[in-house]
Amino acid sequence: MPRNEKPTANGPAADYARDRMVSRRRFLAGTVSLAGLAATTMMIPRLHAQEVKPPEDPMRVPGALPRPYGDRSPFVKSARVGGAGPGAPHGWGENAPNNFNSWTPLQDLHGIVTPSSLHFERHHNGVPLIDPARHRLLIHGLVNRPMIFSLDELERLPAVSRIAFLECSGNSHDLWLPNAPDFTVQDTHGLTSTSEWTGVKLSTLLEAVGVQRGASWMLAEGSDAAGMDRSVPLTDEVLQEAMICYGQNGEALRPEQGYPLRLFLPGYEGNINVKWLRRLKLGTAPFMTREETSKYTDLMPDGKAYQFSLVMEAKSVITSPSGRQQIHPGFHEIRGLAWSGRGRVTKAEVSVDGGRTWQPARLQEPILPKCHTRFLLPWRWNGQEAVLQSRCTDETGYVQPTRQELVKVRGTKSVFHYNAIQSWGVERDGRVRHIYA
Amino acid sequence: MPRNEKPTANGPAADYARDRMVSRRRFLAGTVSLAGLAATTMMIPRLHAQEVKPPEDPMRVPGALPRPYGDRSPFVKSARVGGAGPGAPHGWGENAPNNFNSWTPLQDLHGIVTPSSLHFERHHNGVPLIDPARHRLLIHGLVNRPMIFSLDELERLPAVSRIAFLECSGNSHDLWLPNAPDFTVQDTHGLTSTSEWTGVKLSTLLEAVGVQRGASWMLAEGSDAAGMDRSVPLTDEVLQEAMICYGQNGEALRPEQGYPLRLFLPGYEGNINVKWLRRLKLGTAPFMTREETSKYTDLMPDGKAYQFSLVMEAKSVITSPSGRQQIHPGFHEIRGLAWSGRGRVTKAEVSVDGGRTWQPARLQEPILPKCHTRFLLPWRWNGQEAVLQSRCTDETGYVQPTRQELVKVRGTKSVFHYNAIQSWGVERDGRVRHIYA
Repeated sequence: MPRNEKPTANGPAADYARDRMVSRRRFLAGTVSLAGLAATTMMIPRLHAQEVKPPEDPMRVPGALPRPYGDRSPFVKSARVGGAGPGAPHGWGENAPNNFNSWTPLQDLHGIVTPSSLHFERHHNGVPLIDPARHRLLIHGLVNRPMIFSLDELERLPAVSRIAFLECSGNSHDLWLPNAPDFTVQDTHGLTSTSEWTGVKLSTLLEAVGVQRGASWMLAEGSDAAGMDRSVPLTDEVLQEAMICYGQNGEALRPEQGYPLRLFLPGYEGNINVKWLRRLKLGTAPFMTREETSKYTDLMPDGKAYQFSLVMEAKSVITSPSGRQQIHPGFHEIRGLAWSGRGRVTKAEVSVDGGRTWQPARLQEPILPKCHTRFLLPWRWNGQEAVLQSRCTDETGYVQPTRQELVKVRGTKSVFHYNAIQSWGVERDGRVRHIYA
Repeated sequence: MPRNEKPTANGPAADYARDRMVSRRRFLAGTVSLAGLAATTMMIPRLHAQEVKPPEDPMRVPGALPRPYGDRSPFVKSARVGGAGPGAPHGWGENAPNNFNSWTPLQDLHGIVTPSSLHFERHHNGVPLIDPARHRLLIHGLVNRPMIFSLDELERLPAVSRIAFLECSGNSHDLWLPNAPDFTVQDTHGLTSTSEWTGVKLSTLLEAVGVQRGASWMLAEGSDAAGMDRSVPLTDEVLQEAMICYGQNGEALRPEQGYPLRLFLPGYEGNINVKWLRRLKLGTAPFMTREETSKYTDLMPDGKAYQFSLVMEAKSVITSPSGRQQIHPGFHEIRGLAWSGRGRVTKAEVSVDGGRTWQPARLQEPILPKCHTRFLLPWRWNGQEAVLQSRCTDETGYVQPTRQELVKVRGTKSVFHYNAIQSWGVERDGRVRHIYA
């Protein structure tokens, strides 16, 4: 599917109708007679496979019956966009159709929780289908007691939950390019999402296996077909915060986010949060995997590259009004998200004149460390050209840089870790456009 | 479907397979040649309609491609239970098949966010299918400027988000009965859930219409086939906190929670948070609707009834180990939820000896006002009989009562507002049972 093209209305509507039929049968089977079932069926709005026909007046028609596991309204069409294979957007995965991204529709979302069904995706060889009863986590290397854990065993250990963002280090990678294509905020910033993650602390497991002297790095390996693996430094921060997660937004991890098990390192670039986690090996040095040597390094202007630049620095973006939206003169609320891999966001400011003047935006509670924070600012558009920007400050005092400042230090040869201020140009006709300003 | 019977494995698995097929086609259509499509299809694990066959080794088979809107793993079976019509559990809705409840599977959930697909349901005449483009909210009565708002108009006004619980006033209603059936925690407490709600403050809309002197109550009416309506007192608390919501956990409200619009009164009993909201009428006195006269009142021992007992008092429950679970001697983490309609939970305590001794449990951050708070306590079961209980305290100093204390004041003629301490008996064979203790 080409970028920016929404899936057709038929898909979700058809799913909705089918789900309703299935769950209605399920729920009614044990509770009413066949005669009752027929009567009920006749009263319920008919949802045809290829169209949604709401009743003229919903108050005159009894509504649908419950579903064991719900779904959204067929009128809600918000979707991830992404692709793979030759011709895919952003040039990803030319030679490997299962090596793909898909972007969260930030322009459609409210608050800070990302619905799990719309969480961004980054896969190196597709989404594996894993039987949780057979899945195991091995911890070995420089440990006193190598151990193998089943999912049940991990779920019985002391649990922690944390609402935190995840961001692909390649989020906004096209903004390194010299020209600014006509992007949406989904295109420019959609590789970040926030969930409530639940699991067991890495430190709990390391206590169980007994860490040997000298162990300062850990290999984390996924059980996908890419065998995605990364080296994790066993710093105090990692030992305090790293989690082996089995839960996402209250339920089991979604397949796309690593079901049944993933590593979660709050604030660290997405790919090191290894999904479908099967193995942790402790050692004295980084393991120099493909993903930290040929990939996921930051090429600097002098031709050298940063390695293990793991923390996602403070970043923010206005999600509305944003690229390819159409606005009209009058009242708008400028809304956006801010986050930092270093801790809490302490300030988000908005400019409507390309950075000449700034106003503090309201930060919506809760403001959590290493988590998306929603900011909002009322604005009356007067119909004149405007350039909307946001910049955030985190609890370390770090201020999100302008694109010019970022490029001055980093050059333009990078793919990863772009966190500059984003500009949306508002034209006189109300068209909002991704620009460099 | 009878209570406690999970839907068959075939349903979700079939859905998963079908979704995968649909989304694969969608995503690939624009990006690869037909030859490429065929090759890709062959590489992907085959998911048959009626069975899930994960590959023997997921690392040897490329995984599945992305979906515009994801779904859970076919191995995850957690489901709401509920029913309607003659013979339905708990005797609800005998004469109205669309008058039903369905219960959240609290025993399966992590953290505090309830997945929207598993949010509890309480409907008085089914779930209406509403076209958001045609839906309107009318505000009239004692106002200076009666106004009609479209969904688009409401979404443009200043937004607020809040993570908060919702609880049906009838949650735990069977615990007023003299005997304790063999219930799960889903049966006893599953009519409460937590979401991040987003919308516009009621006070913003009231400012727009101009409230006239003497207006102290407000009728809220839904556009379901029950015409569900309730009177809301316009207290300072309501004016500060009430929201007209269009968002739930980042996306649009789910149909079962009021799509496209609902009233949300943090801490107040579920039914006054009117779903599918179409009308607010301001007046000088309560409107005495069916739901606050013949229904949703609390019958006291002397034959009189409390009316407008709107706040859900502090309550807690252990979700694991809980009813009908089977445990084994050794380490367990006792986990549960605590909440209060009066504000923050300040303490959750756990007893393993039926309330003779209590230990403070760990409260998981974030601890938000009028929101579920997760509590956890390590426990080693020695194989002897035990009675597990939790009790919470809120920021007003109120302590959750024992069942005996509650019944002493309220008698046993009530249906609603049961918030006593819950007891789970652990038998010598590890069977956990709902008991009164």
